[in-house]
Amino acid sequence: MESAAQNRPSFDTIAIVGVGLLGGSIAAAVKAKGLVRRVVGVGRNSQRLDAAQSAGLIDAASTEIGNCKAELIVVCTPVDLIADGVRSAAATADAGTLITDVGSIKGNICRALDGALPDGVTFIGSHPLAGSEKQGHRHADAELFVRSVCVITPDASAAVVQVNKLTSFWETLGATVVRLSAEEHDQILAETSHVPHVVAAALASSLQNENSQFVASGFRDATRIAAGDPNLWSAILLNNVDAVLDSLDSFRDQLASLRHAIENRDTQTLQNLLRNAKRNRDELS
Amino acid sequence: MESAAQNRPSFDTIAIVGVGLLGGSIAAAVKAKGLVRRVVGVGRNSQRLDAAQSAGLIDAASTEIGNCKAELIVVCTPVDLIADGVRSAAATADAGTLITDVGSIKGNICRALDGALPDGVTFIGSHPLAGSEKQGHRHADAELFVRSVCVITPDASAAVVQVNKLTSFWETLGATVVRLSAEEHDQILAETSHVPHVVAAALASSLQNENSQFVASGFRDATRIAAGDPNLWSAILLNNVDAVLDSLDSFRDQLASLRHAIENRDTQTLQNLLRNAKRNRDELS
Repeated sequence: MESAAQNRPSFDTIAIVGVGLLGGSIAAAVKAKGLVRRVVGVGRNSQRLDAAQSAGLIDAASTEIGNCKAELIVVCTPVDLIADGVRSAAATADAGTLITDVGSIKGNICRALDGALPDGVTFIGSHPLAGSEKQGHRHADAELFVRSVCVITPDASAAVVQVNKLTSFWETLGATVVRLSAEEHDQILAETSHVPHVVAAALASSLQNENSQFVASGFRDATRIAAGDPNLWSAILLNNVDAVLDSLDSFRDQLASLRHAIENRDTQTLQNLLRNAKRNRDELS
Repeated sequence: MESAAQNRPSFDTIAIVGVGLLGGSIAAAVKAKGLVRRVVGVGRNSQRLDAAQSAGLIDAASTEIGNCKAELIVVCTPVDLIADGVRSAAATADAGTLITDVGSIKGNICRALDGALPDGVTFIGSHPLAGSEKQGHRHADAELFVRSVCVITPDASAAVVQVNKLTSFWETLGATVVRLSAEEHDQILAETSHVPHVVAAALASSLQNENSQFVASGFRDATRIAAGDPNLWSAILLNNVDAVLDSLDSFRDQLASLRHAIENRDTQTLQNLLRNAKRNRDELS
């Protein structure tokens, strides 16, 4: 009991900036876990905030990011708005405030905020590897982070107490927390998420409309992520250009090897390549 | 009642050559629909056939394809064994016997069998667009074909009565039947199934082992089909080389456009390409 109570953070107020799928799920999860007295939702659209409040996800709503006095502020906006959001929230925050985000890229955000916040206000990047192609707080799920991985990217100057607080926060929501540098994060995610999105989009685009009736579950699975929001994904890709290009080259090499074996009717090589792919995939299951 | 009875074929004996996922599912479905008095399973492994018989999928088992006296013979072997299987079954079949298959390629099979069967024995190719990366009759599912599409590829010489019988057979199992030429089938399936398999395999192969903990549902979905059997898929791809290479080129063009927009940080073009991909994918849902 005692150690659980020690490890479990508790907050008077948490502010969620951007109450969509991820923000809404965090709100639902912190309430379900009893981590917080009050959740404030911040956003530009007051109707949507009202709906989130009616749904019981948030206790109060504000369209002014500067008003969100909270010990923990989680910025859940699209990636190209995160750094500005953090700066605005930090400008009026009390000393001791911890700010984090849920963005799919970390390097550009962390670099933009390096040395840019008032004394006593800490930003540590987070990226919970959870979500879906669905959008909006209507799909919020208090269990979204259970058995997921959450990467956090504290820089060398981050206070241990704040790193531990953020770690406990995500762990209480069910995630396993992994610390990486922002640059390591962006390289890895280019491979595991950003390039798969580009590949799925290319596959979906190469389907001729008149052939769509001949699509079975394999094509549907392989292209599911291509249904994600084009503006959000464009911003993610353009905030991680170098790592995405590197990983695209690795993918292109693998594809070229497979193409070469097919073109040369080289059964042995083709079977070996497909066996290697299957082994990699089976290890994820 | 009368028209349903007229449309619904009924058979004394159906033989299933190769009682795996698809063969077992056909056996389960024809029994569930009461289409047949007796299902004979044919295969090389008598233990597996015994297990399928114990599971109630088949009524009798034979390791000799020549013994399967049946009005309908469905060859469900890997694609590189189908033409030989059809020839062997046809050699001892009575006049009037209809033989079909479930292979993922049709051109090579139909060409190999053109003019090669005894008078009175008809082969018409089938390809039910159903299945999964699972294998074996233990995963057999009588509902596998419900709301699926089944392509049949009768050549110009096929008797209308046999084409209608095969059409009714698949329709009774729940499929929508579409007639194509074997060549049309192979071109379309290169795009909707074979190239997606190659792409998923390249994606799975480009994952570095140490990064597998950072994989979320998007990568899992996009690579699920790469878990398919390497030998089966090698045979499929090598029986459809020209169409697969053509479709791979289309995919590569789409990928190059996306890469170019990313490299040039061309937000507008990238958003348009991702929007086009999303539109294509959304239309499948």
